[in-house]
Amino acid sequence: MATPFRFLSVPRRAFSAAVKFEGRVSMVQGASRGIGLEFVKQLLENDDKGHVIATCRNPNGSNGLVNLKDKFAERLRISQLDVTIESSIEATARDIKETYGHLNLLINASGILSIPEVLHPETTLSKVEKSSLMLAYEVNAVGPILVIKHMWPLLKVGGGFGTERSVAVVASLSARVGSIGDNRLGGWHSYRSSKASLNQLTKTISVEFARKKDPIACILLHPGTVDTDLSKPFQRNVAQEKLFTKEFSAQKLLSIINNVKSHDNGKFFAWDGQEIPW
Amino acid sequence: MATPFRFLSVPRRAFSAAVKFEGRVSMVQGASRGIGLEFVKQLLENDDKGHVIATCRNPNGSNGLVNLKDKFAERLRISQLDVTIESSIEATARDIKETYGHLNLLINASGILSIPEVLHPETTLSKVEKSSLMLAYEVNAVGPILVIKHMWPLLKVGGGFGTERSVAVVASLSARVGSIGDNRLGGWHSYRSSKASLNQLTKTISVEFARKKDPIACILLHPGTVDTDLSKPFQRNVAQEKLFTKEFSAQKLLSIINNVKSHDNGKFFAWDGQEIPW
Ligand SMILES: NC(=O)c1ccc[n+]([C@@H]2O[C@H](COP(=O)([O-])OP(=O)(O)OC[C@H]3O[C@@H](n4cnc5c(N)ncnc54)[C@H](OP(=O)(O)O)[C@@H]3O)[C@@H](O)[C@H]2O)c1
Ligand SMILES: NC(=O)c1ccc[n+]([C@@H]2O[C@H](COP(=O)([O-])OP(=O)(O)OC[C@H]3O[C@@H](n4cnc5c(N)ncnc54)[C@H](OP(=O)(O)O)[C@@H]3O)[C@@H](O)[C@H]2O)c1
Repeated sequence: MATPFRFLSVPRRAFSAAVKFEGRVSMVQGASRGIGLEFVKQLLENDDKGHVIATCRNPNGSNGLVNLKDKFAERLRISQLDVTIESSIEATARDIKETYGHLNLLINASGILSIPEVLHPETTLSKVEKSSLMLAYEVNAVGPILVIKHMWPLLKVGGGFGTERSVAVVASLSARVGSIGDNRLGGWHSYRSSKASLNQLTKTISVEFARKKDPIACILLHPGTVDTDLSKPFQRNVAQEKLFTKEFSAQKLLSIINNVKSHDNGKFFAWDGQEIPW
Repeated sequence: MATPFRFLSVPRRAFSAAVKFEGRVSMVQGASRGIGLEFVKQLLENDDKGHVIATCRNPNGSNGLVNLKDKFAERLRISQLDVTIESSIEATARDIKETYGHLNLLINASGILSIPEVLHPETTLSKVEKSSLMLAYEVNAVGPILVIKHMWPLLKVGGGFGTERSVAVVASLSARVGSIGDNRLGGWHSYRSSKASLNQLTKTISVEFARKKDPIACILLHPGTVDTDLSKPFQRNVAQEKLFTKEFSAQKLLSIINNVKSHDNGKFFAWDGQEIPW
């Protein structure tokens, strides 16, 4: 009768009805491709007890996720989620609650910069369109915040057994070009302003988490310039050594995430751990 | 035959076909009430050659503007403009172009914080609604930027004859709570993030104006906590000496505006001239 031992050997919070899994439970939102998909891969490979919920708009359309599911069937759960459709976020939260009971890590990796025929990164004020501003804001700022809103109750469990962390982490991918203080080149009005908003919303949320003494730290991450579909149209002027692979970037960002302390709550870090000004 | 003298006595740019008025031409957007209305009053009173275009959503509904029109009929022009309706911005730009040919000052004073039954300043993440975030962003960030977009060609004339300034000024009312670095209290997610976006968009625009050597400086202003409809529901916890009259605030802000130099382009000032961190 080994079962009681299992309970005796784990911290007291394991008795909470909600905590059903021993390994860390992580969610990666925006996981169909790019850096998000790479996060899922590394999380599954690095922690052989960890469970990962990967969310994307069209699960069947992501070869990357389908391949990972073949390899990590037991520990990977794929959930349909479009950040512009709040009901899909709520459904995922319910599913995680029922299946795992909690979350120790939430990564918001979704984001848009350009979409052919729809969203063009602006090169001048005279080309700024209301529809582009609104769309970038909806996807890049509002979307991740609604995800945090609905996952919040699940994150109150803290860092989780598979980690050294006392806090659960919410890490949202922002971008250095979202920094107002660091804005020396101009352009990309929609993308820049949506990421600045994401930064302000995250900072706002971090204040509430701290005040309520929730064991959660919210951080913002700049992944560097990473070779993905998002950066492809703009790679021409990037020096080769400054264009990172997604493997390198995700590894750097996961090491930041794994070392988050509660005093990092509300901060904005680049891939190399340096803080970025607002 | 006095007419030729008038041309001879003014600087060379006065020969441009577009420049039809000797006094400064200023536009105040969001002028129906509050700080915007007070700007219109002080601009008309302080410069007896200056012309003012006051814009608002419903010109007949603003007693304040109707009264000023009685007193300053010749020098005040009222134009219907709703920042959420781009065609109304374009129509105002056309009207100003035909009537005055240029603009030396543009003040964006419109803004929303709370609207009964529609927009509630959030006290917690769990009450954050997508519709509120989108509305605040549309009115507080996108709106003023579209106004600047359409007035930009008119502002390239620079500071204007009635002023000491070599640059035209675009001043948008932001708010200290829009500062990410200064965000210690949390809450008001929609308002805070919309103002942070306005800040980022203004900074982005200022970079282009500088690069193109346009004689225009874009600044952001925090008016202090001012006794208007906007602050009314939140005045309870404000010390009496920290609640400014709109007369005091507009006077302080106009003195900042009148002293703007081109190196102020892209900066964020409080009513007392102190710079606010992003
Ligand atoms: N790559 C860079 O150089 C770079 C630099 C700075 C910051 N970033 C940020 O890093 C993050 C990841 O970028 P990436 O380079 O990996 O981009 P990517 O390869 O283009 O991937 C973007 C991801 O976002 C998802 N997405 C888009 N709209 C969505 C929506 N409405 N709901 C849910 N998911 C949505 C996409 O899903 P679909 O497959 O369904 O479209 C895709 O999984 C983004 O936030 C980006 O802004 C990237
Ligand atoms: N009062 C403060 O303590 C304070 C502090 C920091 C920053 N601010 C900022 O200062 C600015 C002025 O605020 P206030 O105190 O004077 O506010 P207010 O008295 O409430 O006036 C707000 C103005 O914005 C206009 N407006 C609202 N929606 C609009 C739209 N869609 N299109 C055009 N105009 C619209 C209103 O017009 P209608 O009459 O048609 O509604 C009104 O003229 C705002 O940007 C505010 O965020 C104020």
